[in-house]
Amino acid sequence: MALLLHLTGIDEAGWAKGFREAMPGYRVVTRSDAFDPAEIEFIFVWKPATDAFEGLDNLKAVLSLGAGVDALLEHPALPEVPVIRFVDEELTHCMSDYVISQVTMHQRLFTRYAAHQKAKVWSQLYPPASHEISVGIMGLGVLGTDAALKLRAVGFSVNGWSRSAKSIEGVEGFAGDTRFMDFLAATDILVCLLPLTEETRGILNMQTFKALRRGRLVGGPVLVNAARGGHQKEADIVAALKDGTLGAASLDVFETEPLPRTSPLWEIETCFITPHIAAISNEHSGVRYFSQIIADHAAGKPLRNVVDRGRGY
Amino acid sequence: MALLLHLTGIDEAGWAKGFREAMPGYRVVTRSDAFDPAEIEFIFVWKPATDAFEGLDNLKAVLSLGAGVDALLEHPALPEVPVIRFVDEELTHCMSDYVISQVTMHQRLFTRYAAHQKAKVWSQLYPPASHEISVGIMGLGVLGTDAALKLRAVGFSVNGWSRSAKSIEGVEGFAGDTRFMDFLAATDILVCLLPLTEETRGILNMQTFKALRRGRLVGGPVLVNAARGGHQKEADIVAALKDGTLGAASLDVFETEPLPRTSPLWEIETCFITPHIAAISNEHSGVRYFSQIIADHAAGKPLRNVVDRGRGY
Repeated sequence: MALLLHLTGIDEAGWAKGFREAMPGYRVVTRSDAFDPAEIEFIFVWKPATDAFEGLDNLKAVLSLGAGVDALLEHPALPEVPVIRFVDEELTHCMSDYVISQVTMHQRLFTRYAAHQKAKVWSQLYPPASHEISVGIMGLGVLGTDAALKLRAVGFSVNGWSRSAKSIEGVEGFAGDTRFMDFLAATDILVCLLPLTEETRGILNMQTFKALRRGRLVGGPVLVNAARGGHQKEADIVAALKDGTLGAASLDVFETEPLPRTSPLWEIETCFITPHIAAISNEHSGVRYFSQIIADHAAGKPLRNVVDRGRGY
Repeated sequence: MALLLHLTGIDEAGWAKGFREAMPGYRVVTRSDAFDPAEIEFIFVWKPATDAFEGLDNLKAVLSLGAGVDALLEHPALPEVPVIRFVDEELTHCMSDYVISQVTMHQRLFTRYAAHQKAKVWSQLYPPASHEISVGIMGLGVLGTDAALKLRAVGFSVNGWSRSAKSIEGVEGFAGDTRFMDFLAATDILVCLLPLTEETRGILNMQTFKALRRGRLVGGPVLVNAARGGHQKEADIVAALKDGTLGAASLDVFETEPLPRTSPLWEIETCFITPHIAAISNEHSGVRYFSQIIADHAAGKPLRNVVDRGRGY
C-alpha cells in the first residue's frame, strides 16, 4: 500500500522527501513515479486535477493539505471515502498572530494615524482601551477558539458566534441564526474565521455591517476577514467603507485572487490588504500530522478530523 | 489641611470635582480658589509653574499625575518632600495595548504590505510566527512587566533588560550595562519602556540599533519607543531606517513635541508615527489612586510609590 502526493503549484518533491523520512517503512509516490493506482491507500492533495482520483479503487481516505475544504468538496470526481482536513498547530498559531495584529491595529486607530502621518498632522486622540472593545469572532472551531482565548489574554471582551453552542471560558457565546443579530449588536470588531459553506457564502454583506455596534471606535465598526473571499461581498465592503457603515477593514482574502488591479479596495485608505498570507500550512507540521494519521490507521485506530460533507467542513 | 490641584493645560476643574466627590470630608482647592498656602498638605501637579510650590511650608508630598517624573524632578523649586508617581492600572493596560499592536504590526510585516497595497502589488511572503520572534523590553517596571506577560501569552519569545535583575516567568532577563549587548543580540523587536534618566538619555542610538539581531524579520530589526523622546537620537533613527540597520519603527514620542513638520520622520514609510497617545493617565483611576494615598496617610500608613530622586524614577 502507498501514499500518493498530488500537490499542484507547491513543492511536491519537498513534501515527498519529508514523508519518506517520517515513514521509512511506507511507500510514498508522486505523479511522476511509476506506481499501480490500485496500491494507493491514501492520496494527499492540494488543488487536485480533474482526473486525480482515477483508478484509485483501494483508497481509504483523501488527505487535504488545506484547512478549508470548500473547493475540494466541489471536485466532480471526489471519491466516497473520508476526507481528512489538516488541523495544524502552526497554522492555528499564525492565524491568531494575524487576528491579534489586525484587531489591535484597528483598536489603536491605525488608519486614522496613518492618514495623519501622511498629512503631517499632530492630533491627539486617545484610542479606547482593549477592555472597552468587543471582538466578535464568527466561527469557534480550532482557529476561532485559539484567537478568542488570546484576545481575552491581552484584555479584549470577546463574543463568539457558531452554528452550535460552544463554551469557551470568558467568551460570550451566541449560537445559531436566531442569535446572529444579537451577536453583531454586541460587536465592535468583527472577525470572520468561518468555513465556507452554502450557509456562510456572502455573509459579510451590508446588512451584516449595519447591525454592528457603533460608538466605541471612532469612525465606525471594523471588519477582519481571514477566512475565504467567498464569505464577502466586496461591493458591499467598498460601499460600507465609503459611507461610514464600516470604519475600517483588514482583508486577507478576496472574491478573486490575486485581487485584480482594478479593484477599488486597493485605494481605500481605511482598508488594509494582505495577499492571502494570514496563515499557511507548514510542511514540517503537515508531514508529522498526516504520518500520524496513516500510522494510526495501520494500528486500527479511527480516522480523526474527518470532514462532514453534509455540513461542508 | 487641604489638597491643591495645579494642573497645566488639562481639565483642572474636572479633576477637582472628582476629588471632592471621592473625599467629601477633605478640602480640595485649585489655584483660583481662596486658600492659605500653609494649609496645603498635598499638591497634585501636571507641568507645575516655576512658583507652584511657593509658601507651601506644610507640604507632606507632591503627587505627580504623570507616570514619568523626569521633567518634574528638574523643577528648580521642587521641595524636599516625597514625590509620589502615579501607578495607574488603566495606563498600564493602555500601554500594553499600544505595545502589542505595534509589535504584532511589525511582526506581520505591516510596512511591507502597506507599500505593496499602495503599488497594487500582490506578493505573498509569509511573516514569521510570533514564537520565532524575540521581543526585547527595555525597562521591567510595572509597564514593562505587564507588556512582557501579555506578549508571552500571545506567543512571542520575550527578553527583558533592567538595571537590577528581575524575575518574570517565561521572560529571559538581562540585568545591568554588562548584559546590554547580549540583550540586543537576542532581540528582533526592541521596545523602550524605560524611565528617562541621565543613564538612559539617548540610549536609542545607532550603536544600539547595530547590535540588534538580524535575519528573523525581512527588512531588519524593529524599534518601538513609547517612553520618552529623550531616549532617542532621531537623526540616528532616520539614518538607521534609511540604511537598513532598522527595518521599521513605531514612535509615539519625540525629541520635540509636537513633532515639527520639518522632521524627516514623517515621510519615512517604514516609520509609524503616533502623537504621544500610547497611554494617558485616566481621571477616574487617578482620583481613586491619589484619594487612597491621602486616606492611607491620614490613617498613619506609609506613602507608596515614592520616587527615588537619586535613581530618577
